Amino acid sequence: MISPTLGVCYYPEHWPEDWWETDARRMAEVGIRYVRIGEFAWSRLEPSPGDLRLDWMIRAMDVLGRHGLKVIVGTPTATPPRWMIDKHPDMLAVDKTGRRKGFGSRRHYDFSHLGYREDCARITRILAEALSSHPALAGWQTDNEYGCHGTTYSYSPAALDGFRLWLERKYGSIDALNVAWGNVFWSMEYNRFDQIELPNLLVTDAAPAHELDFRRYSSDQVADFNAVQYEILKSARPDLPVIHNFMSRYSEFDHFKLGETLDIGSWDSYPIGHLAKSDETAEHKALYLRQGDPDNAAFHHDLYRTVGHGRMWIMEQQPGPVNWADSNPDPLPGMARLWAWEAFAHGAEVVSYFRWRQAPFGQEQMHAGLLRPDSEPAPAYDEARQVADELKTLTFDGAIARGKVAVVFDYESEWAWEIQPQAKGFRHGDHVRGVYAAFRKHGLDVDVLPPTMSSFEGYDIVAIPALLAWTDALREAVANFDGYLLIGPRSGSKTANFAIPDRLGPDLGANLLDTKVARVDSLPEGIRVSVKGGGSTHIWREKIVGNAEVVMEDEEGEPVLVSQGKLFYLTASGDKALVQRVADYLIAEADTPVLQLPAGVRCRTRGRFRVYVNYGARAQTLTPSADEAGYVLGSAEIEAAGVSVAALAKAD
Amino acid sequence: MISPTLGVCYYPEHWPEDWWETDARRMAEVGIRYVRIGEFAWSRLEPSPGDLRLDWMIRAMDVLGRHGLKVIVGTPTATPPRWMIDKHPDMLAVDKTGRRKGFGSRRHYDFSHLGYREDCARITRILAEALSSHPALAGWQTDNEYGCHGTTYSYSPAALDGFRLWLERKYGSIDALNVAWGNVFWSMEYNRFDQIELPNLLVTDAAPAHELDFRRYSSDQVADFNAVQYEILKSARPDLPVIHNFMSRYSEFDHFKLGETLDIGSWDSYPIGHLAKSDETAEHKALYLRQGDPDNAAFHHDLYRTVGHGRMWIMEQQPGPVNWADSNPDPLPGMARLWAWEAFAHGAEVVSYFRWRQAPFGQEQMHAGLLRPDSEPAPAYDEARQVADELKTLTFDGAIARGKVAVVFDYESEWAWEIQPQAKGFRHGDHVRGVYAAFRKHGLDVDVLPPTMSSFEGYDIVAIPALLAWTDALREAVANFDGYLLIGPRSGSKTANFAIPDRLGPDLGANLLDTKVARVDSLPEGIRVSVKGGGSTHIWREKIVGNAEVVMEDEEGEPVLVSQGKLFYLTASGDKALVQRVADYLIAEADTPVLQLPAGVRCRTRGRFRVYVNYGARAQTLTPSADEAGYVLGSAEIEAAGVSVAALAKAD
Amino acid sequence: MISPTLGVCYYPEHWPEDWWETDARRMAEVGIRYVRIGEFAWSRLEPSPGDLRLDWMIRAMDVLGRHGLKVIVGTPTATPPRWMIDKHPDMLAVDKTGRRKGFGSRRHYDFSHLGYREDCARITRILAEALSSHPALAGWQTDNEYGCHGTTYSYSPAALDGFRLWLERKYGSIDALNVAWGNVFWSMEYNRFDQIELPNLLVTDAAPAHELDFRRYSSDQVADFNAVQYEILKSARPDLPVIHNFMSRYSEFDHFKLGETLDIGSWDSYPIGHLAKSDETAEHKALYLRQGDPDNAAFHHDLYRTVGHGRMWIMEQQPGPVNWADSNPDPLPGMARLWAWEAFAHGAEVVSYFRWRQAPFGQEQMHAGLLRPDSEPAPAYDEARQVADELKTLTFDGAIARGKVAVVFDYESEWAWEIQPQAKGFRHGDHVRGVYAAFRKHGLDVDVLPPTMSSFEGYDIVAIPALLAWTDALREAVANFDGYLLIGPRSGSKTANFAIPDRLGPDLGANLLDTKVARVDSLPEGIRVSVKGGGSTHIWREKIVGNAEVVMEDEEGEPVLVSQGKLFYLTASGDKALVQRVADYLIAEADTPVLQLPAGVRCRTRGRFRVYVNYGARAQTLTPSADEAGYVLGSAEIEAAGVSVAALAKAD
Repeated sequence: MISPTLGVCYYPEHWPEDWWETDARRMAEVGIRYVRIGEFAWSRLEPSPGDLRLDWMIRAMDVLGRHGLKVIVGTPTATPPRWMIDKHPDMLAVDKTGRRKGFGSRRHYDFSHLGYREDCARITRILAEALSSHPALAGWQTDNEYGCHGTTYSYSPAALDGFRLWLERKYGSIDALNVAWGNVFWSMEYNRFDQIELPNLLVTDAAPAHELDFRRYSSDQVADFNAVQYEILKSARPDLPVIHNFMSRYSEFDHFKLGETLDIGSWDSYPIGHLAKSDETAEHKALYLRQGDPDNAAFHHDLYRTVGHGRMWIMEQQPGPVNWADSNPDPLPGMARLWAWEAFAHGAEVVSYFRWRQAPFGQEQMHAGLLRPDSEPAPAYDEARQVADELKTLTFDGAIARGKVAVVFDYESEWAWEIQPQAKGFRHGDHVRGVYAAFRKHGLDVDVLPPTMSSFEGYDIVAIPALLAWTDALREAVANFDGYLLIGPRSGSKTANFAIPDRLGPDLGANLLDTKVARVDSLPEGIRVSVKGGGSTHIWREKIVGNAEVVMEDEEGEPVLVSQGKLFYLTASGDKALVQRVADYLIAEADTPVLQLPAGVRCRTRGRFRVYVNYGARAQTLTPSADEAGYVLGSAEIEAAGVSVAALAKAD
Repeated sequence: MISPTLGVCYYPEHWPEDWWETDARRMAEVGIRYVRIGEFAWSRLEPSPGDLRLDWMIRAMDVLGRHGLKVIVGTPTATPPRWMIDKHPDMLAVDKTGRRKGFGSRRHYDFSHLGYREDCARITRILAEALSSHPALAGWQTDNEYGCHGTTYSYSPAALDGFRLWLERKYGSIDALNVAWGNVFWSMEYNRFDQIELPNLLVTDAAPAHELDFRRYSSDQVADFNAVQYEILKSARPDLPVIHNFMSRYSEFDHFKLGETLDIGSWDSYPIGHLAKSDETAEHKALYLRQGDPDNAAFHHDLYRTVGHGRMWIMEQQPGPVNWADSNPDPLPGMARLWAWEAFAHGAEVVSYFRWRQAPFGQEQMHAGLLRPDSEPAPAYDEARQVADELKTLTFDGAIARGKVAVVFDYESEWAWEIQPQAKGFRHGDHVRGVYAAFRKHGLDVDVLPPTMSSFEGYDIVAIPALLAWTDALREAVANFDGYLLIGPRSGSKTANFAIPDRLGPDLGANLLDTKVARVDSLPEGIRVSVKGGGSTHIWREKIVGNAEVVMEDEEGEPVLVSQGKLFYLTASGDKALVQRVADYLIAEADTPVLQLPAGVRCRTRGRFRVYVNYGARAQTLTPSADEAGYVLGSAEIEAAGVSVAALAKAD
Repeated sequence: MISPTLGVCYYPEHWPEDWWETDARRMAEVGIRYVRIGEFAWSRLEPSPGDLRLDWMIRAMDVLGRHGLKVIVGTPTATPPRWMIDKHPDMLAVDKTGRRKGFGSRRHYDFSHLGYREDCARITRILAEALSSHPALAGWQTDNEYGCHGTTYSYSPAALDGFRLWLERKYGSIDALNVAWGNVFWSMEYNRFDQIELPNLLVTDAAPAHELDFRRYSSDQVADFNAVQYEILKSARPDLPVIHNFMSRYSEFDHFKLGETLDIGSWDSYPIGHLAKSDETAEHKALYLRQGDPDNAAFHHDLYRTVGHGRMWIMEQQPGPVNWADSNPDPLPGMARLWAWEAFAHGAEVVSYFRWRQAPFGQEQMHAGLLRPDSEPAPAYDEARQVADELKTLTFDGAIARGKVAVVFDYESEWAWEIQPQAKGFRHGDHVRGVYAAFRKHGLDVDVLPPTMSSFEGYDIVAIPALLAWTDALREAVANFDGYLLIGPRSGSKTANFAIPDRLGPDLGANLLDTKVARVDSLPEGIRVSVKGGGSTHIWREKIVGNAEVVMEDEEGEPVLVSQGKLFYLTASGDKALVQRVADYLIAEADTPVLQLPAGVRCRTRGRFRVYVNYGARAQTLTPSADEAGYVLGSAEIEAAGVSVAALAKAD
């Protein structure tokens, strides 16, 4: 665990070698401690096959090290050089429409291609051998943004071969697969594994179990790809962390599973670009145009902290306008500081700005850095320095504590409802993030948990919305939990083979809930059904039978929230008002203490500090909470993009 | 002709054999008389090439027969099993972008592939031989939903070969084709038939005659495909009907032509899904969210009754939410009953619900049945029973009578205006359905006729809108007709070779109408021109010359409706108000008696009954008509989704 | 230079030979002087390889010549006949998704295919030999609408080979290319030229310099293709002009460069279709539904006059509804006359209507002509005759004079901002046309200039918006100019290799402007920032540093217009109101005299005449200007679609 500090992404290969010294000196002056290098440098490390040139990288590390900077070295496997394609012409991935995606940008490789995977092992071994004893080395990053640009799925011959083997290993016999997939349905039964194709270029939908298994297979390839590098890097330096930099709202592979071969979960936080590319309303996007969504970064901090077994970094932090959204607004002054403080509050050890100097060439030439292309400071330069200075006066102590509330996020459920939405707009992640935001609005710290939890002990409230298929372990964890549970909608509605359970959903096991979903009413955009007392349902409405107690019902008399003991079941997709009402109801039931937060303000408590951040575009006044002992940074008056840190009377 | 009764679609292969008995008993108890089976079962009938297993199907028919149920056996050719692709790798169709559409769902075959067509003949022969003497057998269904999922057109080598042969047969010489297609236009002249390509993947539009011939060719392949099975099945049992189940608003092949090798026209009626997938306005969709469009099912009943030479079934009737629209709302309580009653009123012999039990696996696992997946009754179970009970008290007598009004529907015209809309949104079917609905609003029974009519004797009014190219037979039928005619817009505006006629349109022949279309003004969405007296034109406005009498004109002084004797010509696409005014005008001229129907209520007269159905979401009060002698079902108070049946003083 | 006169496009091969005489006589009667023929006739000129049939074309020219008509012969290379594809199967272009675009429409060839280029040279030579001494011959048209239907770019093997050679010639060494493209950025460095691929089917964006070079290469192929024909035609008849017919808002190749092998710049003016297909607002489209955008034709007249070295024709003039927009409205009565008058006012020598008679067959059968398909006059027939008659009374004298204002238009800049918009909706052409319209609103004549100008002498005001990379020549022209300059936004923001200049933009050289763009704030649609005093910025906002004088600033205090001497720099995309304010400010500074024009009215001064045209849908009253001496056509009362011509007291 590292005390909160700053980092930066640096590309020595982009600049004349005689600039390195000045750059390193200025980094140190700003207060930066970590520098990530190397993740796109393969064509400079090995310009032609076997012609290794690691000398310049060692010299760069020497320079950085001389200025007290620690180095994270990225394996360059996201950007195989052009000659690699000559060696493995079939390593290029194939898109869903059957077209090879060629060389000329990045991530031009197929996770299923074993030959390329071997070359990745080779270059990783070479880096490990050459650099692992370098005194500046502080850790490794594997590859870069796995899956970015839609690269998790490939419909190549290599993927097909791998998929067939994976299926054979999973099912053992073709009959077992036929039963599991329900292939009798449209005479889709196979005689042999080698008759199975990838689920693209079909006449209409593939069997949902076929689709889901292909997603599971593809996810496994990413995890396996990472594991190869992890083993090599850990063998070389068991003491140094192996990290990967994940993305926002990206769920094409199971990050929890990949996290099994990582020591730290990091991610690349670009709040403004992420909001621009999201499907939030135009109104919401306008409100947070220069700040980003006020809950999205926090959610990912909490998610990737779990992926990273409690350790989390921001490997790339937006410092100014980016280049990859349709439009790329300038952040409000102060946001580059705010985002860093919020990340620290959620447990980040390092917040590393991307990038040191804006590149005047290449695809990202319009992406801001801490320096302009002419080496003059950009606005974030001073904001970073301010954060570094502030950190000197204020030390977070150790690991972050568990929240009082938790929500379960499940990658398979994301895939499942993409495969079979049944109601357009039904998404697992929306339900998870909706619940997350509703609790967080009251200042509650919310953990994001995987579906593999065997116990929820210690939480007041746990929410499990829209979870495809419950495992026995999850059923047991829920049965043994003595806090409050918010389940549904659509949770436990399928088996692991993507079929409706014999007893119908929600298939929670035991006698936890006397409720069955008899029918689903799915509604197009714009159609809402009011709920008595406030809020409304839309998109998804279950019609249930059974004897659970009705807590809320809609104007048609259909139960919306039912309960049995401390277990609450939500039967529908709710709008924000309804989700908030439900969260408030659970909070009241569980008697969990809350905070009063002005509009646009959010907070997170870490150790003996509570960090308030103002995502709003205007100043607000905080209401101090009874457990606080005054501000150690800022004050109750918190300006737009402002940060205030309150000390707690005693540690959380 | 069968007296109205109920059916159901059943998949014995989906359930343990020891469930069949109970299922059959319950079907009989509900009052179901017909059961369709087998249409997706090829992989169970022939799990590997030549390994025939018809025993289970015979046992299933035995069980059903024992409970007095009659069986319709579907040929399984819509779902060739996987091994068939090994046998005929090139039987897979190719989409417009040139990609083969693979195995893994259904309808994965090319209508032009003669090898697969032979295998379909083989399995049909095998079924005919094994089952045609089974006492429970009551008829056959060929394939399933021809053309579904865009499968009419294939751009494969097989299609190309077939198209060239078809053209050679049609035109005899390449010079004749060059002239017919107008190939001089852009130096598109061919030297030989084998130079002709399919009209996809071009730089810009193909010659319209080239496109139209490809559509005609593709349509012919579907008809030929059906004819092969028809011949086999009729040879085996000349007394049993051969049926095919068509779809809603589907016009990629000529159903009238295919109907030449059918005994009954059936279709699959999913009113809510059909409305959701239509291009109706959001307002209209919201109004009929849980009922479906109030005229769409009726239109198709009338259309497919004509296709079926007077005989019509509903082979699949929606029983609850479906799975294939973007969102899939629950029907209003009562709709599963209403839809059945309306179908019977329009001449249906059998209304067969799809399906008996909701499948918990496969692509359609969210599609409701009469039973839930756990075998408990779903709401439509009781509605079906109610229909069966009501039918006992009330017997329709024989064939349905001709209406007073008719409208001509032409598949080639649908293709033509898709190929050359000239005004975005100009569609043949919209004009036909618009006229249909305007007359039906007054309680008039409207027949839907093919363009091959040689006489319109017996009708008060016949409408022929937007009909591409008039044949001499049609010209003669019109010339000899002494009722009222509503022609246009765009009717008779082309030759059969998709060229403008020498005399310009409307090319009705003889001296029926002294009017030429001198120019067309086509208007983008949202632009309307008011018509004096009410309503407005949009999309398409013809500027005519000639001496026909002007009945209506627009605010710019352009004639909108002109007449010569009893022939009326409409020069423009009208909005609903204008089309209604024109229909009202014709009704008044023809002195055709009408009914008063409340909003949302529709009716159809059959034999000595008039069936009223209320598609509206609230109750209405009917105004009894002078020819009625009281209600034999329901009353003048008709609730939402309600049905009332009036007896006529004397039969229609 | 030809005195303004009319022409028409005629296809003798479409009609019986015994119609030609009558057609020619009627053309002459209307007052038509020029007839374009032959541009799609290859299959009739050479029905099979080597079988030449030029006799009919000579007879057609004989007939036309006998009636005093002059003939422009088009080379038929836009429509290679079918047998050509047998000869060169790989001459078909490949689209961005990798699919060959087949025979069956037009423009089915690849500009990079040298074999086809040779066949084009051959047929051109044959035409030149056979026809160049024909007394009716008055000039040549090369091909037809280069690039139409997205045909500039091809992703074929031929294009790939050509691109690699072009790059090798440009860069000399692969290292130079790697540096120029910034290939170090993502390990995109090449070892050899033959490793480079075309920039399609990639995982994500190619390097912008890679994209830009591919566009430059593709543009060069079009120019080279034209040059081949030009050389042949000029050799045969050095005295006759070689012309090409360009299009509206089409910029995929550099028309200025192609113009180097042309004698006259002509274009095909379809104002209504062009507006329909543009991205103007629905409101604007409704306002000018039957007239077309009031500035678009004028802009292209001025652009192509420059491309044609001062000589400009309208080779195809819309005469009525066209067939190729989504909807194709009828023009207001009078527009076919107005468009011709406006073209003459902007320097057109010939306005040639497309086409003589509407074709009843083929792809364009719904495209109006001067005659209907039945040979009766369409409305434009009489309008053309009126123009011809009016021209007799009113002779423009010689070449058109230079305007007081000029705006620089640059094809590379169009490509660059398409490759890297950074803000969605940022387009070079929009900035150019916006400035053009703002000055023209005051009746000022505005020239459209290429970026290769070496002097701006004689202009009061020159605008250079959004120009990618400034050349030293341009820098010098600007430095030496003593008029007023309006530069920016984004002008000079890159090097020719698509990199940010070392000193940052605007890289105008010398000490013309003490301003640097420190950062760019790009805004999504609907977000605007008000400017103090009126108007607002949107899409693109530069944040500048430096010491230029602030003339306008926005409500956040950011400079919007700054100046240094007579050079003004605009830092943002402005809405119409802001662009107008800026233009007005410059006009006031430069003390340039202006006219008062009613809404919808535009004018252009040529020689001793000022032509007013009313694009509005209602009549207006003109305010005579002090330099006018009364009207020689029309009056101060100018009706919708009306034309008034004022004589100037002394020539302009």
